[in-house]
Amino acid sequence: MELIRIPRIIQDTCKKHLQKGRSIGFVPTMGALHEGHLSLIKRSKMENDVTAVSIFVNPTQFGPAEDLDRYPRDIEGDSKKIRELEADVLFLPDDRMMYPTGFSTFVDVEKISGKLCGEFRPDHFKGVSTVVSKLLNIVRPTRAYFGQKDFQQSVVIKRLVKDLNFDTEVVVCPTIREHDGLAMSSRNAYLNPEQRHAATALFRCLTEASQAILSGKHSPAKVREMMHAVLSGEPLITAIEYAGVYDPETLDAVAEIKGEVLLAVAVRLGNTRLIDNMLVNT
Amino acid sequence: MELIRIPRIIQDTCKKHLQKGRSIGFVPTMGALHEGHLSLIKRSKMENDVTAVSIFVNPTQFGPAEDLDRYPRDIEGDSKKIRELEADVLFLPDDRMMYPTGFSTFVDVEKISGKLCGEFRPDHFKGVSTVVSKLLNIVRPTRAYFGQKDFQQSVVIKRLVKDLNFDTEVVVCPTIREHDGLAMSSRNAYLNPEQRHAATALFRCLTEASQAILSGKHSPAKVREMMHAVLSGEPLITAIEYAGVYDPETLDAVAEIKGEVLLAVAVRLGNTRLIDNMLVNT
Repeated sequence: MELIRIPRIIQDTCKKHLQKGRSIGFVPTMGALHEGHLSLIKRSKMENDVTAVSIFVNPTQFGPAEDLDRYPRDIEGDSKKIRELEADVLFLPDDRMMYPTGFSTFVDVEKISGKLCGEFRPDHFKGVSTVVSKLLNIVRPTRAYFGQKDFQQSVVIKRLVKDLNFDTEVVVCPTIREHDGLAMSSRNAYLNPEQRHAATALFRCLTEASQAILSGKHSPAKVREMMHAVLSGEPLITAIEYAGVYDPETLDAVAEIKGEVLLAVAVRLGNTRLIDNMLVNT
Repeated sequence: MELIRIPRIIQDTCKKHLQKGRSIGFVPTMGALHEGHLSLIKRSKMENDVTAVSIFVNPTQFGPAEDLDRYPRDIEGDSKKIRELEADVLFLPDDRMMYPTGFSTFVDVEKISGKLCGEFRPDHFKGVSTVVSKLLNIVRPTRAYFGQKDFQQSVVIKRLVKDLNFDTEVVVCPTIREHDGLAMSSRNAYLNPEQRHAATALFRCLTEASQAILSGKHSPAKVREMMHAVLSGEPLITAIEYAGVYDPETLDAVAEIKGEVLLAVAVRLGNTRLIDNMLVNT
């Protein structure tokens, strides 16, 4: 595995691969890798000649009061995992490389960036869109891999790639879960044992709602009510940011349940923000 | 010369060139080609294996009250000129190809986009940055050519290319002028004979200011005054949007004249907006 810290160098490396006709799979991450990330790398390995992984805790996607400083970092452990999976390139830039003095260009996917999580994290998806645009230009991957756990992110990135004509296929991979259903997330590390137990309410809320829909409950208001009831039943959940039934493309709350719908939820357990989602096909 | 209307097709064509190790020069235009545009194509021909030219009157860079509808169009004449210069590819997309339904991603170079012309054309450079990002992703040129006449545009694009890690060299070529000094512009076609004559005031204002600086006049306020005096002396100039001495990187008005400075001017002659500029090295 080649470790590269300089954008221009990995850009040249990747260009050489493309010129030799090799496909490049790319897995952009913020590190603190869990089985979810590893599933993306494995998928990329299967589908491409070359697999590049990036680790960069992107400051522009964190709000001023958010967890940028305490976001878990484990470069050594991460490198070991990536090496074991036999990824070819690890890109490890620092803030100054990615955002040098004078940096002032931002990419914004309007409308959908303001829905769901965007209401609570105003510039989050602008930061994501900007860093992903940079990374796609640096690596120029044939395919880029993202997890379904960050559903809105995948919608924003698919839109961005289409709108700005990036020559990359966006591949969204299934959410990987713990044995009790909790979606894997680097932020799960923030939870104390009681909160960790309480966090299972997200998966419970999604599965119960999904089962209700599949067994004929077709009122979005009723399903939403049910989801809120499950979450409210968990005293360690300190806030429900949103929980309901949404259109998987526009991310708007649906007026009726038909075709494919998105069940999505965001809550706070003390200082920790957790999200999860599930697609249901009626 | 190959004429291509579909983004995906020219993207594949250009990718094949790059895979064969050929350099691509790219000249993005809005058509109504004059000697200025042709000089960019000639330069690209000299410096690259393949030259691609695009013609697209980009709606997102026009304000609601601007001249999108009446902007001069001459596809037939343009094609002939491009063919004569032996460019290899002409990309001729339509609005629907570039901005399909649901389009919602915009690229914005903050700060410098709001200076000079940006004060009078609020979303202009956001539209330029967005379409140039799209075109660079479609063509992936080794070098892209722009005219110095649109000086602020070249600063915005250089910033954009650097910030978003586009693997393209931005080449800014000298302004081409009529025999009486008027900078070539597709918008010169709007001028009636009297306005056309009056329009020489822009070049006169820039040369007089430049000569004053070179012969020792080092007060920006005095130079600005002199520039305004020349323009105000021309009764057909109905408004001076700006005229002065600026920093060529930040586009801010300079407090003192030293090193390289930018003389820049934007005026209205009736419904027609004209701009021009000159770099002076003291």
